[in-house]
Amino acid sequence: MPSLHARTRLSAESIFSRMSRLAAQRGAVNLGQGFPSTPPPAFLLEAARRAVGTVDQYSPPIGLPALREAVAQDLEVQPEQVVITCGATEAMFALAQTLYGPNPGGQPDELIAFEPVFDIYLPQTVMVGATFVGVPLNLSAEGWRLDIDALCRAVTPRTKALIVNSPFNPTGSVFTRAELQAIADLAREHDFWLISDEVYDELYYDVRPVSLRTLAPERTFTVGSAGKRLDATGWRVGWIVTPEGAAPEVAGLHQWTTFCAPAPLQAAVAEALGIARTSGFYDGLRRSYLKRMQLLAAGLRDLGAEVFTPQGTYFLTARLPGVDAERLVTEGGVAVIPLEAFYRTQPAPPEMLRLAFCKSEAEIEEALRRLKGFLSR
Amino acid sequence: MPSLHARTRLSAESIFSRMSRLAAQRGAVNLGQGFPSTPPPAFLLEAARRAVGTVDQYSPPIGLPALREAVAQDLEVQPEQVVITCGATEAMFALAQTLYGPNPGGQPDELIAFEPVFDIYLPQTVMVGATFVGVPLNLSAEGWRLDIDALCRAVTPRTKALIVNSPFNPTGSVFTRAELQAIADLAREHDFWLISDEVYDELYYDVRPVSLRTLAPERTFTVGSAGKRLDATGWRVGWIVTPEGAAPEVAGLHQWTTFCAPAPLQAAVAEALGIARTSGFYDGLRRSYLKRMQLLAAGLRDLGAEVFTPQGTYFLTARLPGVDAERLVTEGGVAVIPLEAFYRTQPAPPEMLRLAFCKSEAEIEEALRRLKGFLSR
Ligand SMILES: Cc1ncc(COP(=O)(O)O)c(C=O)c1O
Ligand SMILES: Cc1ncc(COP(=O)(O)O)c(C=O)c1O
Repeated sequence: MPSLHARTRLSAESIFSRMSRLAAQRGAVNLGQGFPSTPPPAFLLEAARRAVGTVDQYSPPIGLPALREAVAQDLEVQPEQVVITCGATEAMFALAQTLYGPNPGGQPDELIAFEPVFDIYLPQTVMVGATFVGVPLNLSAEGWRLDIDALCRAVTPRTKALIVNSPFNPTGSVFTRAELQAIADLAREHDFWLISDEVYDELYYDVRPVSLRTLAPERTFTVGSAGKRLDATGWRVGWIVTPEGAAPEVAGLHQWTTFCAPAPLQAAVAEALGIARTSGFYDGLRRSYLKRMQLLAAGLRDLGAEVFTPQGTYFLTARLPGVDAERLVTEGGVAVIPLEAFYRTQPAPPEMLRLAFCKSEAEIEEALRRLKGFLSR
Repeated sequence: MPSLHARTRLSAESIFSRMSRLAAQRGAVNLGQGFPSTPPPAFLLEAARRAVGTVDQYSPPIGLPALREAVAQDLEVQPEQVVITCGATEAMFALAQTLYGPNPGGQPDELIAFEPVFDIYLPQTVMVGATFVGVPLNLSAEGWRLDIDALCRAVTPRTKALIVNSPFNPTGSVFTRAELQAIADLAREHDFWLISDEVYDELYYDVRPVSLRTLAPERTFTVGSAGKRLDATGWRVGWIVTPEGAAPEVAGLHQWTTFCAPAPLQAAVAEALGIARTSGFYDGLRRSYLKRMQLLAAGLRDLGAEVFTPQGTYFLTARLPGVDAERLVTEGGVAVIPLEAFYRTQPAPPEMLRLAFCKSEAEIEEALRRLKGFLSR
């Protein structure tokens, strides 16, 4: 047989899929992969039940007009700036395709992202033929913070874009306005694009996150996800807000990867975003996740862990000496993600774990009980 | 602002989207883009209404087990060989990523496809950094046939894969067993992969199409689409049947483009494929499309067109002198696709059009009436 292309070296199963698979096989409580164990809101389900049978054929690649309108209203931009994608994963891939890659006769473009890094950024960068540059966040007793000096040092004449993720997966940190302003200033000085992955924009437990777009609208692409906002990660509806004029360019490449996002689910999300915005749904969501975060954080501290309280997302990081994630899932019955999995070009801080709290209180309590048993062996 | 990547030269709106947009703006009857104007079957809609609220979170990237099982049963393969994607469009893109691309220090891989060529093959090939090679089909009074000599001449040591599409969009032709055997023999002789785009596998009006996989299972990737089989093009559920052992490699790249296909729609399609298989649904679908094809073909012949009767798909090609597709949609109120749009490296046969008959009989009759008016001006 002929060989597969060399990029299939990127084909390994991700740590998230692997942990979910092991959790299912072993009956472990899954605090690993970031998907809720509670169902999506009823208003979303009802909208979908009405949409199937009505909106069943191709939408325009750029997205269903009603959904582009709903996203634009939520994010206070023009509908013409919005592109709808198959989840934020495809949104990030479409931006990689649009913004960076090889340069015939020269060096490839460089993409910078912070480490610990959400797992898709590196393989997507490699797949489009660009070079991935990792810059570590600083970890101190005050938590995870931007290291602006390290970021400055990483910028070169080939830097084409920087991915900013706030609220940040896996740490749960939210960049301050001052941090984002420093990033925007740097991007202007060195003239590179900004990709702002804001899939957790409605999941914050402190002040409302600043959107990077408001500080550098001319160069910022904002990415969002209905899956994360509406507890429906399997629905595969995401979006991009582009700088003015760039949406057709992005949609024009996305048409060759998936053509369009699932049309009946786009219609349902369009309706649901309007309801969520006006009904206080996100306040309830935050309250519910805050409660579960506090339950998990307190339980972990009782077990001797150093917990870094998140300001957003449904993840927290904790230092818990003596816990090997592989052994924990197989012998202890709890799936978590070792933070090493998020470091690709830098050494990882030792003995750190990422735990997801988008699970029921009963699951979190059971996980804590099992963890206690595992630690006391 | 920094520049966008050079690959955004591929971003132009496709002829299909453009014609659908013009058709909507002008109130034209849309015999252009290939999507049905009839709703999907009730058993599919009901399955989806039950799936939302039940199957809402990420599926494994490789696909929901129930759907992999259903596809495997339909196509008489092992479930382990099946990968589920966001439509056949993403299936084709995942295969491009898996099979060909640039070679550091050498020439890029070459991909061969037949012209007239379905529009996604060329940009997908360019996006992954490989070289597109077009080979014309032969058009004679007997219709569209394989030119095996032209294909042989196009093969080089860099040929990595050949895309075969049967039933064939845009011509509606179905390759005979002898033609497919010649292709399989050539692929074995020169050791390249075969990608068999069989999205119209259940839409045939003559003998049942032979699946290329049965002639070269060791090297054939088969692509299918729930959207085409179940009249639901907007649902974005497709699949790939891989040679044994290759499914994890393909799924491992697809996880970085979209992560997984829409989970509730995967669940619904899994159920619906089983019902469609046992209830005679596809027989009814074929009867219904055959009737509409005959209506359109007869009407076109009455207007003086030379019609090439399709053996499959829901498209036909016809020679209709004096019809400019741009003028027809704006002044005549009928959207069709000029066959030139499907030629990228070869001259197109003149005055040919592709017309879609996946529209209601009333629409087809109205289109014929308008076409008659347009021609008699
Ligand atoms: C930071 C971040 N970006 C993007 C995604 C992908 O979102 P989606 O499920 O919409 O593809 C995730 C999912 O976990 C994420 O954590
Ligand atoms: C030959 C062929 N392959 C693939 C596709 C894409 O199918 P899907 O809608 O499942 O992405 C089409 C759609 O028209 C097609 O005609």
